[in-house]
Amino acid sequence: MNGHAVETASHLIQNGVNAAKTLVHEPEMHDLDVSKLTVSLTKSPGKVPEPDSLEIWDMKTCTDHMVKVTWTDDVGWHAPTIEPYGQLTMSPIASCLHYATQCFEGLKVYRGFDGKLRLFRPDKNCARLVMSSARVALPTFNPKELEKLLKAFMKVDGPKWLPKSRPGRFLYLRPAIIGNGEQIGVTAPSEVLMFIVAVGWPDLSSGTRPGTLPKPPGLKLLASKSDVRAWPGGFGYAKVGANYGPAFVSHMEGRKMGYDQILWLLGADYQVTEAGASNFFIVWKTKEGNLQLVTAPLDAKVILEGVTRGSVLELARQRLVSGSEYLPPNITDLEVVERNFTMLEIEEAWEEGRIVEAFLSGTAYFITPVSAISFRDEEIDIPMGDGTSGYYAALLKKWLKDIMYGNVQHEWGVVIDEE
Amino acid sequence: MNGHAVETASHLIQNGVNAAKTLVHEPEMHDLDVSKLTVSLTKSPGKVPEPDSLEIWDMKTCTDHMVKVTWTDDVGWHAPTIEPYGQLTMSPIASCLHYATQCFEGLKVYRGFDGKLRLFRPDKNCARLVMSSARVALPTFNPKELEKLLKAFMKVDGPKWLPKSRPGRFLYLRPAIIGNGEQIGVTAPSEVLMFIVAVGWPDLSSGTRPGTLPKPPGLKLLASKSDVRAWPGGFGYAKVGANYGPAFVSHMEGRKMGYDQILWLLGADYQVTEAGASNFFIVWKTKEGNLQLVTAPLDAKVILEGVTRGSVLELARQRLVSGSEYLPPNITDLEVVERNFTMLEIEEAWEEGRIVEAFLSGTAYFITPVSAISFRDEEIDIPMGDGTSGYYAALLKKWLKDIMYGNVQHEWGVVIDEE
Repeated sequence: MNGHAVETASHLIQNGVNAAKTLVHEPEMHDLDVSKLTVSLTKSPGKVPEPDSLEIWDMKTCTDHMVKVTWTDDVGWHAPTIEPYGQLTMSPIASCLHYATQCFEGLKVYRGFDGKLRLFRPDKNCARLVMSSARVALPTFNPKELEKLLKAFMKVDGPKWLPKSRPGRFLYLRPAIIGNGEQIGVTAPSEVLMFIVAVGWPDLSSGTRPGTLPKPPGLKLLASKSDVRAWPGGFGYAKVGANYGPAFVSHMEGRKMGYDQILWLLGADYQVTEAGASNFFIVWKTKEGNLQLVTAPLDAKVILEGVTRGSVLELARQRLVSGSEYLPPNITDLEVVERNFTMLEIEEAWEEGRIVEAFLSGTAYFITPVSAISFRDEEIDIPMGDGTSGYYAALLKKWLKDIMYGNVQHEWGVVIDEE
Repeated sequence: MNGHAVETASHLIQNGVNAAKTLVHEPEMHDLDVSKLTVSLTKSPGKVPEPDSLEIWDMKTCTDHMVKVTWTDDVGWHAPTIEPYGQLTMSPIASCLHYATQCFEGLKVYRGFDGKLRLFRPDKNCARLVMSSARVALPTFNPKELEKLLKAFMKVDGPKWLPKSRPGRFLYLRPAIIGNGEQIGVTAPSEVLMFIVAVGWPDLSSGTRPGTLPKPPGLKLLASKSDVRAWPGGFGYAKVGANYGPAFVSHMEGRKMGYDQILWLLGADYQVTEAGASNFFIVWKTKEGNLQLVTAPLDAKVILEGVTRGSVLELARQRLVSGSEYLPPNITDLEVVERNFTMLEIEEAWEEGRIVEAFLSGTAYFITPVSAISFRDEEIDIPMGDGTSGYYAALLKKWLKDIMYGNVQHEWGVVIDEE
């Protein structure tokens, strides 16, 4: 609409007509604009849960406030608000409840060991939300404004919910956009809500829910059978609700069989795409003896372009090369490869003893080693280095943690001004 | 869960242990049960819109009441309620808002010319909702109970909103199931809401929105280009939200280009699947001169098993055969074919003058003739019989209408007892 108004106006101006906006009666559409933000503080603040408590593992405790921004097709983005956290109200014929006009992001906010509050590469999440929103006919916006909004939100709730006395802790931030107007017609929503909540989140990469036995380290993956998560020409690359609900059945079946995640395959040749809601990496030796870190490519648009995935690739390309000051002594440098690869290749590498390790990357699970893959009734066991993690997974995880928690200063760790 | 409890109990009983339920501490899971229904009537009844009014075309006016049924993973289905229509309230981290744990149905309730209120084959919609629900990890239920619930709902709102003074009118019924509990973890919802609303709905198959110029009859379809609606191993056969939102972008682009619906193709050979949110039928002569009614098959599970689609096929197989008492004089009987067919075949038939007509079928658009298909920058014009519709589309539509509005008595027209 914004684009349309501009186009009409410039057409009229080209024809020598002034005051085009008045003439065409199209109001200017507003972009997301954090300078209009208003803040209304809660009168009933909540209690911050203990780290690793059951409450944290339930993943239901949100902080005291939330961000809300309305978009309507006549005005564009309205003024953002930070307001007390609370229930949403919507019509039973809201588009998002019937037609999955919804998308989201997941990122964490970290309390650093230097006392500072940081986001990790929030520009990547904000840009991806713009892309995801457009993929389900929801409005776009300037991603820099969303980043400002995230910072403004954490300036309010960060100091209390991630106190300086608890360095090394994080909250999970969930921005979402939903078509929430009354609209049962099969068409793009004319009213939309962007909201952001911050949720207490457990350490899924190495923690254990209180009262349950510690699991052995490493995730067990079940290669998908008939179900296919995403397809060329589909929307597997976008963080939209439509990629999740339909995957839950396989996920639950896998759980019942004792597996942690589904490894999603595609096509008659069993291409490896992604696992659960994370990207998948494998380290193997080629038949020629080269050590490779391999993950699926982005070009077919069937996998999510994970922020952690991209960061793993960048760090590996910069640091796991011979001559790098980061490469630990006696550690072999790696060739980093993004290409289509198949379960048949993994199977062959396993039979020939060429698999070194495998891991998942993502915001929710961070870097988590993989200990086994079940494929066609065969259990492929994956080496786990020292028993808790493959070496490269542990090294990459440490490097990323150092950036997230301010042990090193790095441009990916974006400090939030709490003053 | 229900199944699991039963399994455990029978296992214990087999082992000679009585009172199995008490021992395993698993409460019996309840199925959907209309005998527990409670009704709470509105104190602020709404005004029934005029037929064909703008209000009807806005598709936002719901009747005075709605049905609600909660499901929780500890109890199963709770007692259903009919209560005043109103907004839903849910947590910002409700599963349905993030992970598209949602599915729905669409069916109509008709005020017959004999004064009776009817549903059209509601058993089909109810069974499909059970299937759709399971496909996105939502609970199942006895579909017969849902049918009873639809009837109970229309016993309350039918007499006022579809008065006997307006025979030939209908309302659109929208049952939906959403994962509405607080649950941001990527897993099957543990709390779910089934609800049903009744919406005023325009005649999309032949009406025109007030204040707009009447469109020429027939829908213009734009064959999809890079976007793919559904794929083998996916969920295109289920009525889940995930099939809709991601299709809106193509739909909106098509609209801007002057087309009414997208004709969804699949694969390198341009297989014709379905159109917009309807099934697609074509009538053509084969090269051998046989007259055929062709539509895509169900076996690849990429298209919705439309109730109207199934009814068209059944009626055509029963009545459009030589010797049938229904076959009008001088009208050629048809061969009814469900098979994969491609745009290349349609193109060839068009070039050779073998296309007779085409139409869409579905609850929202009923039977609507197709006048053109744009494919690879070529505009394939489809014959429209007398100018308003192909002959077979009009005949099938009349037969179906006669059943829906009680002009003939037929088992597909299920009468609602209004006493």
